Amino acid sequence: MRAPVAVVILAAGKGTRMRSAQPKVLQPLAGRPLLAHVLDTALALGPEQVHVVYGHGGDQVAAAHADYPVYWVEQPRQLGTGHAVACALPQIPDDHRVLVLYGDVPLVTPETLKPLLAGDGLELLAARVPDPTGYGRIIRDDDGAVVAIVEEKDADPEQRRVDEVNTGLLAASAGDLRRWMAALSADNAQGEYYLTDAVAAARADGTPVRARFTSEAGEASGINDLVQLAEVEEAFQRRWARRLLQGGLRLVAPHRFTLRGAVRHGTDCAVDADCTLEGEVQLGHGVQVGQGVILRDCVIEDGAQVGPYTVVEQAHIGAGCRVGPFAHLRPGTVLEEGARVGNFVETKAARLGPGAKANHLTYVGDAEVGARANLGAGTITCNYDGAEKHRTQIGEDAFIGSGSQLVAPVQVGARATIGAGTTLTSDAPADALTVGRSRARTIPGWQHPGLTGRRGPPDDNDATPASGGAKEE
Amino acid sequence: MRAPVAVVILAAGKGTRMRSAQPKVLQPLAGRPLLAHVLDTALALGPEQVHVVYGHGGDQVAAAHADYPVYWVEQPRQLGTGHAVACALPQIPDDHRVLVLYGDVPLVTPETLKPLLAGDGLELLAARVPDPTGYGRIIRDDDGAVVAIVEEKDADPEQRRVDEVNTGLLAASAGDLRRWMAALSADNAQGEYYLTDAVAAARADGTPVRARFTSEAGEASGINDLVQLAEVEEAFQRRWARRLLQGGLRLVAPHRFTLRGAVRHGTDCAVDADCTLEGEVQLGHGVQVGQGVILRDCVIEDGAQVGPYTVVEQAHIGAGCRVGPFAHLRPGTVLEEGARVGNFVETKAARLGPGAKANHLTYVGDAEVGARANLGAGTITCNYDGAEKHRTQIGEDAFIGSGSQLVAPVQVGARATIGAGTTLTSDAPADALTVGRSRARTIPGWQHPGLTGRRGPPDDNDATPASGGAKEE
Amino acid sequence: MRAPVAVVILAAGKGTRMRSAQPKVLQPLAGRPLLAHVLDTALALGPEQVHVVYGHGGDQVAAAHADYPVYWVEQPRQLGTGHAVACALPQIPDDHRVLVLYGDVPLVTPETLKPLLAGDGLELLAARVPDPTGYGRIIRDDDGAVVAIVEEKDADPEQRRVDEVNTGLLAASAGDLRRWMAALSADNAQGEYYLTDAVAAARADGTPVRARFTSEAGEASGINDLVQLAEVEEAFQRRWARRLLQGGLRLVAPHRFTLRGAVRHGTDCAVDADCTLEGEVQLGHGVQVGQGVILRDCVIEDGAQVGPYTVVEQAHIGAGCRVGPFAHLRPGTVLEEGARVGNFVETKAARLGPGAKANHLTYVGDAEVGARANLGAGTITCNYDGAEKHRTQIGEDAFIGSGSQLVAPVQVGARATIGAGTTLTSDAPADALTVGRSRARTIPGWQHPGLTGRRGPPDDNDATPASGGAKEE
Repeated sequence: MRAPVAVVILAAGKGTRMRSAQPKVLQPLAGRPLLAHVLDTALALGPEQVHVVYGHGGDQVAAAHADYPVYWVEQPRQLGTGHAVACALPQIPDDHRVLVLYGDVPLVTPETLKPLLAGDGLELLAARVPDPTGYGRIIRDDDGAVVAIVEEKDADPEQRRVDEVNTGLLAASAGDLRRWMAALSADNAQGEYYLTDAVAAARADGTPVRARFTSEAGEASGINDLVQLAEVEEAFQRRWARRLLQGGLRLVAPHRFTLRGAVRHGTDCAVDADCTLEGEVQLGHGVQVGQGVILRDCVIEDGAQVGPYTVVEQAHIGAGCRVGPFAHLRPGTVLEEGARVGNFVETKAARLGPGAKANHLTYVGDAEVGARANLGAGTITCNYDGAEKHRTQIGEDAFIGSGSQLVAPVQVGARATIGAGTTLTSDAPADALTVGRSRARTIPGWQHPGLTGRRGPPDDNDATPASGGAKEE
Repeated sequence: MRAPVAVVILAAGKGTRMRSAQPKVLQPLAGRPLLAHVLDTALALGPEQVHVVYGHGGDQVAAAHADYPVYWVEQPRQLGTGHAVACALPQIPDDHRVLVLYGDVPLVTPETLKPLLAGDGLELLAARVPDPTGYGRIIRDDDGAVVAIVEEKDADPEQRRVDEVNTGLLAASAGDLRRWMAALSADNAQGEYYLTDAVAAARADGTPVRARFTSEAGEASGINDLVQLAEVEEAFQRRWARRLLQGGLRLVAPHRFTLRGAVRHGTDCAVDADCTLEGEVQLGHGVQVGQGVILRDCVIEDGAQVGPYTVVEQAHIGAGCRVGPFAHLRPGTVLEEGARVGNFVETKAARLGPGAKANHLTYVGDAEVGARANLGAGTITCNYDGAEKHRTQIGEDAFIGSGSQLVAPVQVGARATIGAGTTLTSDAPADALTVGRSRARTIPGWQHPGLTGRRGPPDDNDATPASGGAKEE
Repeated sequence: MRAPVAVVILAAGKGTRMRSAQPKVLQPLAGRPLLAHVLDTALALGPEQVHVVYGHGGDQVAAAHADYPVYWVEQPRQLGTGHAVACALPQIPDDHRVLVLYGDVPLVTPETLKPLLAGDGLELLAARVPDPTGYGRIIRDDDGAVVAIVEEKDADPEQRRVDEVNTGLLAASAGDLRRWMAALSADNAQGEYYLTDAVAAARADGTPVRARFTSEAGEASGINDLVQLAEVEEAFQRRWARRLLQGGLRLVAPHRFTLRGAVRHGTDCAVDADCTLEGEVQLGHGVQVGQGVILRDCVIEDGAQVGPYTVVEQAHIGAGCRVGPFAHLRPGTVLEEGARVGNFVETKAARLGPGAKANHLTYVGDAEVGARANLGAGTITCNYDGAEKHRTQIGEDAFIGSGSQLVAPVQVGARATIGAGTTLTSDAPADALTVGRSRARTIPGWQHPGLTGRRGPPDDNDATPASGGAKEE
């Protein structure tokens, strides 16, 4: 039987070097607070208790993690890591194994931590680093048992060459920690109580001290400034890109991929360069995601193709759909099988039936579009009257001519045709042509000012030709 | 005289670790199947024969490479690399020099392979690797002649330190190979016939065995999973970015560039970050390609500028044109000298004459636009009636007012003006103003619901204001 | 007292290997000529004089740097670096300390150079490089004093192992340099006068020779081809990304960030992957910049959010504004507090008042939009008559229905409503509904050709449905 586990997460640091008004542990990694990553790791270990020791910005920190089942422990004064752990100990029974994590060390994995929980003495997490300068070195005896942690300033030349360093993460029984922490002294330059001194205490009372290594280089990297935050972000992205590749998701350029959430996927999907997946993303089999696509909280079914530079938020894309390039699917969009949404098209709270199309320069909001219906270029569902939203309903096989406005609430019947350029303000019946526009007339001999009055080449910054001629009407 | 060459490409592997329903050699590298890259390399050597030994998914593999002049050789059971080579040998005359390549080793270059063809004994391709663990080591005698290839499990400590490893690629005469393969034994753990055993056979019969090195690190990397596929893709892209730079194409950020085809270019072109070039791309002198542009099978002439986030497919962009940002040029687009296509504009099967402009929010499909003609913002050529496409013809110096729909088939004469907001359903004569729209009238004292009925601030997710007022009409 | 400083920048190289028609020192690094970077570094040292020694393309080079207070010195024939320096010396008083820089060595920093100015003998800039092959090695005596610079071809095996190499940058008094340069010989294979020979000359007359190191690896990298230009560009971007992070600007993916100018920023800003900042960019506090955004010469105030794939040029974005995705803000755009510009919207020379909105598929050019006014989807300000631009003025709380064209010059009064689909050619009064469109009528029993005449499934490449039905009118 494993001892019950209590995780203590130290999250009280001010993070001055982050140069931010936010508490450090709220800085985002992959779109979520640093602390959320550490909490997820902690909970993955199946602990009885999780304690978060907070100091600066405690209310903000707690509010941002309100869904987590944790104890919030205030450390009123920043008296060092030993003191922080001591703040949490009163609530932890002696028989619990305590694992100490840090809110600004987010990459450590449950797999690395589990062996620390299995031991019965003091278990340290060590890391090998290419340049150990500045770290506390782990000094072992000939049998590999840990003798001491020696800080840079106290290390002799031979000790300085040791590349095995202390990460600060450790595990021990609550009873041992309670005893050791009670005996800590703040008799040092900073006047702080150091958790590291537990090593000497354990040695003194004969408790075995072991050090185990991280599985991955950089796994125990801490974050003290934005440079380190960016480095950890890059490591996080590399790790996840690799995991996704191993799991069968083809990332064309893993170093140009961003994950900020979780993705489930079928076989033979491909995600091109510069894509970002956020929230919960679900891809079926054979989904093709083009360059620069941003997907957030969406489902994309088998064989769908999402063209370059498409942004999808809280939408459902059916099997075999083709979307983009340059499409923007906003929340509440549902594309049924084989529907198509093309370039410069925005959808919102809209359902497109099987095989329906909105291919060019269109706004579809608060609408139901029937199967195989075709929205011409420049179609706009006018869903907003300045105060409320209204719905547009379009029947199956309907054909909306280009440049039409459908003023909601309005219905277009099945197989109806709306003439190009129509502003539709009342329902259009099924199986009929509805059209509203003026017959064009010609005023001979009239030429636009660009021909008659040109006083030089038009400025390249000039823009929309309109026709002053319109004024002649 | 060089001996005639036969290339045997082993492409029968199942590729289970790719986690794909596709045969491994169809997995894409730079947009083309792995095998296509190997075939191109093989053909660059000027061989008499190329044999592809296939197993899994052979029909699919052959269909995807139907244009290549190769023999397809089935290996009905996967009995090892030696057996695979033996399957191809019956069709190869004794005097031919046989080069064995692998369908999943796509980066090897003709330059590296040519020396293997020039030899007369058994020529191996070796690679130096930073960590040889797991590879077969190449063991040489004091004169540098290859004595043996020793697999990891059989290697003694000194042999394990050898960082010269066997890539599996080799060349020998067909006669020698035939003799060696006939004598192979499958007396090993896997019960397979190993091509590698040719080394011992050659040594036994006194054939000289040499090993030559790859020119580039990683050139002989094989692909067994998606992680390795991504690594090879990155190596491919680095190689080609470097070649393009050396050839005089300025890539602003080579590590953020993707090539999936071939590019020809003049001097003083620049390609900004995150661009992708696909198919056959031809750039003149001084072409400027902005960030995030995707070019596929297109020609861009001297001095043209393509703005950021533009997608060009099978189009021709004339000298001095300016395109984008956010333009989508689809197949059949031809822009003549100095034409301009601006933001949120889509073109398809459309010719824009010299100096013509379509600068904003426009769809130009199946259209001829005369020189210097100006399409206002929101112009739409209505080319589709639900069944057929029709063409729009616009004369030179014509001026199409904003928000017009041109319902094809329709012609606009030279120097004609179309008033803003016109839906044009019949031809508009030259040198005249044609306009079709209703005179606006005013209903005093009417206010939109946002002012009269507002029950709170409008929801930020609200969208297109339309005007319920339209209902009052 | 420090001696007065004269900087001599050698910029006469032809740069044949750049494969460009442009002089090498005009090749861009981070969007500006190489020479401009070196000039900025030179001027940061507070020199009395700066001399640029030019050869090829001198007029072009001088014209591109006309704003810099420098002396342009022609080197009529390319007779080597010693000769180039000698060309500038006549204008420099003996008591000046001369610092020699290179127009194609742009990364060297003022911090690295300052110690060279402080010395009184010959001060060389040295670099440690992983592979010194090809470089001149710096040979020191046991006291660390520089004895000689030995070129690759003259180096003995021990000297070849020296990884301390000469960068070519150096400082000495003008008097010393004048004496040494006068004595140079061109008695070598190239028949050139080498500045490096100053070391031997200094040694000969007893002037102390010292070598100091660069602060950063790669800082003294020279540029001879486009591969090196790209490497220096990447080093530049890495350096600046790090500086911005250290200064408190959160770059989510520093390796996917491009800076081509200067940025000032408040606290808690975040810049997502693939952004490019050009010219002078100013960000307030808490500004969020989405993926793939391009900002050029703009100001973005506190709390504004710029969505993905937005291009901003010479624009001002007020506090709390939300812009994009897919927006294009062109020069002269001013968004006041809380204004919103949405997808597929272009603005130019336009002011949007506080809380005004243009959320979808809209062109706003040469316009004033009042507070809280709402432009519906597809609204177009028709600002161009083919020759001149005209302005549109929209009052506060006005509501422009979707698909409207506002033909400038035109005014819409405060709280006015424009019905959807209206082409407005004269002013619309305040507090009233103005609408211009035809009432739609229905022709029963009419079906579009897609239903009646379909001879097969519509081609996927078909595009804008229009309605042949329009022809029936």
